Amino acid sequence: MKLCMIGSRGHSYYVFESIHEIPGMSLPGISSGCGDSPQRLLDLAERNGFHPEVCSDWRAMLDKLKPDVVCIDGPFELHAEMCAESLKRGIHVFCEKPIALTLDQLEMVRAAHRKSSARIVSMVGLRYEPAFLQGARMVRGGAIGKLKLIRAQKSYKLGTRPDFYKHRETYGGTIPWVGSHAFDWILYFSGDTFESVTAVQSAEDNFGNGDLEIAALCQFRMRSGILASASIDYLRPGSAPTHGDDRVRAAGTEGVLEVRDGKIHLIDRNGEREIIPEQPDRRLFSDFLLELSGGRPALVSDEETFELTRACLLAREAADSGTMIHF
Amino acid sequence: MKLCMIGSRGHSYYVFESIHEIPGMSLPGISSGCGDSPQRLLDLAERNGFHPEVCSDWRAMLDKLKPDVVCIDGPFELHAEMCAESLKRGIHVFCEKPIALTLDQLEMVRAAHRKSSARIVSMVGLRYEPAFLQGARMVRGGAIGKLKLIRAQKSYKLGTRPDFYKHRETYGGTIPWVGSHAFDWILYFSGDTFESVTAVQSAEDNFGNGDLEIAALCQFRMRSGILASASIDYLRPGSAPTHGDDRVRAAGTEGVLEVRDGKIHLIDRNGEREIIPEQPDRRLFSDFLLELSGGRPALVSDEETFELTRACLLAREAADSGTMIHF
Repeated sequence: MKLCMIGSRGHSYYVFESIHEIPGMSLPGISSGCGDSPQRLLDLAERNGFHPEVCSDWRAMLDKLKPDVVCIDGPFELHAEMCAESLKRGIHVFCEKPIALTLDQLEMVRAAHRKSSARIVSMVGLRYEPAFLQGARMVRGGAIGKLKLIRAQKSYKLGTRPDFYKHRETYGGTIPWVGSHAFDWILYFSGDTFESVTAVQSAEDNFGNGDLEIAALCQFRMRSGILASASIDYLRPGSAPTHGDDRVRAAGTEGVLEVRDGKIHLIDRNGEREIIPEQPDRRLFSDFLLELSGGRPALVSDEETFELTRACLLAREAADSGTMIHF
Repeated sequence: MKLCMIGSRGHSYYVFESIHEIPGMSLPGISSGCGDSPQRLLDLAERNGFHPEVCSDWRAMLDKLKPDVVCIDGPFELHAEMCAESLKRGIHVFCEKPIALTLDQLEMVRAAHRKSSARIVSMVGLRYEPAFLQGARMVRGGAIGKLKLIRAQKSYKLGTRPDFYKHRETYGGTIPWVGSHAFDWILYFSGDTFESVTAVQSAEDNFGNGDLEIAALCQFRMRSGILASASIDYLRPGSAPTHGDDRVRAAGTEGVLEVRDGKIHLIDRNGEREIIPEQPDRRLFSDFLLELSGGRPALVSDEETFELTRACLLAREAADSGTMIHF
């Protein structure tokens, strides 16, 4: 299969994490997709043994090289257009989340997807992290009985961010960008879909980062009645031992399971214990590609990619408008 | 000073935790305040060296024994009436939270308080727990810079509950009953007041406990812009090592402080560390009584008691109505 890559603003390195697990993958072309330098992406490709052509025009690259699949990680505000153009050409899409920054953009991608035989998934890589993957499987397998309450936390170091993070038009907001991971865990652990959301956010005290919201809270009711919340912040001190403090706490009728510090903390009828997760049997990019090649079903579906993106945009709208939004 | 006690449905045992720290306290009378047996309260008093008269009529007890202060812990739905009647008689009130189950009841207590020289505080004992007390002092002292985000968790074992928990009219709901502690931590850690709230709750899968909500989530914006949330549940398994899993996580511009497992976990510019809290220099009941006797100011004010009760009732209304409520 032929892969092309557009941009490296976010998590396109996921590709190289597992590309060698897929037999016969080639990378004939890359493009920054905008005025960004393609050097970083080119270096990454070459370190992984690929020598792609660097194309200045991403559309022309798709038309000329006719890839089977494209990795989209250009400017956030162009994700949707790049997705739609790729789907129209029958090219499978592996796109940075969120795949759209507005509901109109999302509808454009959905429309292109409906008419296409190509597939799309977004980069919800944290679903594949060992403790989250195993924790979600345990919850869905009944380890805590019927799930009633789930809380997800994303806490990041702010560090120094490129300018595009400082403007809502090019960044999209902290709820979509950081919250997407938390929402994805909620979707994955619960196996449910969102019914309503309220949210609050704050861009004050953001250390000169323009529009960037430094903290946010989102609160959901799921269709089955599960209660869910996400806590999102860039307040993790630079001195902390890891970049992110990622957590999920799931409480059910027969136990409580928590993912914290990369471990699973379980309390059930047998008492309290800590579980060191096993290494996952799959990784995000190869999981998608192997399914495309006719292998086992991947963890993420196209429908979940749309549901997740919609949740990001509606939660942001709930925060912006100070209202409750129904899905 | 003379104390009378009405009922022991909740946390009236707080009285005996520190009553001997107050010189010259007497306990001439107790009453169950309703059809409940007074035996449990009488036993507790006697084990602590008091031999009160047992009165069947709580009003008659107040009129006859003329206490300086009354501990109110009768039926939840009578808290407000008992508070108002005591305040009208110039008797200081130490009342189980919430002090009212409806906004009308709360207004009745406020009106009686305005006309009285007597004071009122509710039993927000968890503010006095070592790690929470010290954690709040650290946050208010600037240990994490400017507070931006605070999350409180109350997770209890359900166990077997008396019948009055099964009816909204006599229980008041899980948001007021359990959430009050979480809201009190938010008030205390932030030194701020509430601006708006949304909430979700679920009474399904409550193991046959009638109206009792087994789980709830509340999300606040504070007046200064701080974002706050509370996670409340009765889903802690019976096998867990403690009754409650009480937590607060406070994130500010210069650090993150978390209270968990009775310890303080701090990350600031100097890195990550765990702090074993010191024994508190005060306890709830004696703190109030010593202030009444002209000593140092207590941690809880009358105004906070009203603010907390209002927050409980408005958060419950937000959950019941599925709307955002502004304070």
